[in-house]
Amino acid sequence: MPGRTNCRVIRIEFGNCDPAKIVYYPNYVAWIDQSTHHLFEAAGVPLRELQTRLGLHAPIVDLSVKFLGPAAWGDLIEIESSIGRWGSKSFDVVHHISDVATKAAIAEARETRVCVETGPNEPKKLRAQAIPEAVRQAFV
Amino acid sequence: MPGRTNCRVIRIEFGNCDPAKIVYYPNYVAWIDQSTHHLFEAAGVPLRELQTRLGLHAPIVDLSVKFLGPAAWGDLIEIESSIGRWGSKSFDVVHHISDVATKAAIAEARETRVCVETGPNEPKKLRAQAIPEAVRQAFV
Amino acid sequence: MPGRTNCRVIRIEFGNCDPAKIVYYPNYVAWIDQSTHHLFEAAGVPLRELQTRLGLHAPIVDLSVKFLGPAAWGDLIEIESSIGRWGSKSFDVVHHISDVATKAAIAEARETRVCVETGPNEPKKLRAQAIPEAVRQAFV
Amino acid sequence: MPGRTNCRVIRIEFGNCDPAKIVYYPNYVAWIDQSTHHLFEAAGVPLRELQTRLGLHAPIVDLSVKFLGPAAWGDLIEIESSIGRWGSKSFDVVHHISDVATKAAIAEARETRVCVETGPNEPKKLRAQAIPEAVRQAFV
Repeated sequence: MPGRTNCRVIRIEFGNCDPAKIVYYPNYVAWIDQSTHHLFEAAGVPLRELQTRLGLHAPIVDLSVKFLGPAAWGDLIEIESSIGRWGSKSFDVVHHISDVATKAAIAEARETRVCVETGPNEPKKLRAQAIPEAVRQAFV
Repeated sequence: MPGRTNCRVIRIEFGNCDPAKIVYYPNYVAWIDQSTHHLFEAAGVPLRELQTRLGLHAPIVDLSVKFLGPAAWGDLIEIESSIGRWGSKSFDVVHHISDVATKAAIAEARETRVCVETGPNEPKKLRAQAIPEAVRQAFV
Repeated sequence: MPGRTNCRVIRIEFGNCDPAKIVYYPNYVAWIDQSTHHLFEAAGVPLRELQTRLGLHAPIVDLSVKFLGPAAWGDLIEIESSIGRWGSKSFDVVHHISDVATKAAIAEARETRVCVETGPNEPKKLRAQAIPEAVRQAFV
Repeated sequence: MPGRTNCRVIRIEFGNCDPAKIVYYPNYVAWIDQSTHHLFEAAGVPLRELQTRLGLHAPIVDLSVKFLGPAAWGDLIEIESSIGRWGSKSFDVVHHISDVATKAAIAEARETRVCVETGPNEPKKLRAQAIPEAVRQAFV
């Protein structure tokens, strides 16, 4: 089932780490957000096009992350992302983060996102919308 | 009960926002981490001193955030942080984020952190330790 | 001459520092950008309003920073910002960054920014424009 | 002359862009820092090993960047990095950033870095040191 799961590898940079010499944890959250974008792009339905063509966004409403082990400067980590749930207007993306060399688990995350429409000059007015069927089909 | 709760106000900067013209969500997570530091500092037990004096760190093991409403460039938001639970080796910090002007809720977050010791040259070897009684007492 | 110079104090957070235990240098650049926004806001001409009312932006075209000394977790630093030069379509902002406690210089920066107009759906088409006289007058 | 120049490609993510829908400029500076690390690693002398084996760091003392054109969400940019100058204790790294698709120049940067030693518990005490000959030779 191509497109169902997307993997990407990230190299931990010096600047991603904190004085405790491990990844500063909010960086994982930025990579999680990016990984959702990569997942949709790999499935052929880039969020960028949903936005520019249909005026649809997919902001997060719920995030949970379990941190299972640290990563440090020079490590390679893999983020494996897939859809965990489709609702009518919302969906979950799950992410498994692991160390490429040791296969050790680093983090497990779940994002719940909602499909919304915004007015062009009202970025804070978010109206929930049905997820287009074509988006859902792209992951089958 | 001084020291129990800590409030800080953050002004949303241009660079904190994304092309959807609202705060890029991983930024909230960095502010949540910082707010835990501010909470401990306000209680008289800065995490920096625990680290330099006792070799203790408090890495995160679990994060959950509910995003309840957007914030945009120029908004002032308040983060109210407090201890939600003390275990013997772990503790929870809860954060309520709201809009200063409208009082609208923006996010609710809970971090679970563990008290650990690391070797000086082994940043990835984390050994759980009892939370020093003095730390707990600082919040009473 | 109110509005001419703007000062702000930043507390160095754990997450602003890198494994060398000093501020990760790109963070200074984000603070410099923010300080330009604060300078214009203090002068009564927020860049946000220039953008929403007049469709004008002020992207950077040239940046130079001299790094004169390090700052570390827990330090307070002051950023003093002022206009260094007005051209017809461009201007310079200079920033002096120093340690609040020791007064030691940390960095000196100069940004050159250009006043531009963009089409609503062409964010990469930047057309240089004359700086509105009211903006310049706000700094006198 | 292998190792002399290092190229890397970066995909512009949603979260790298600001409300003006182009890359938030401090992000370029983080990529420039990372690119210097990649350059040294490609030459066989990773800065991480200089740090852990010899206690040597290479903090920046001078940065200049000319911004020549914008990049936006979804663009691929290439950063080509090389040594611009070797001094006895300092060196320059130059970076050319361009659009992969159009070849248009996006930015030109120059970093001056100094080879320093720090005490293990004195991260702010930086003493300039001669650049090891082996480092210089790695780029010939």
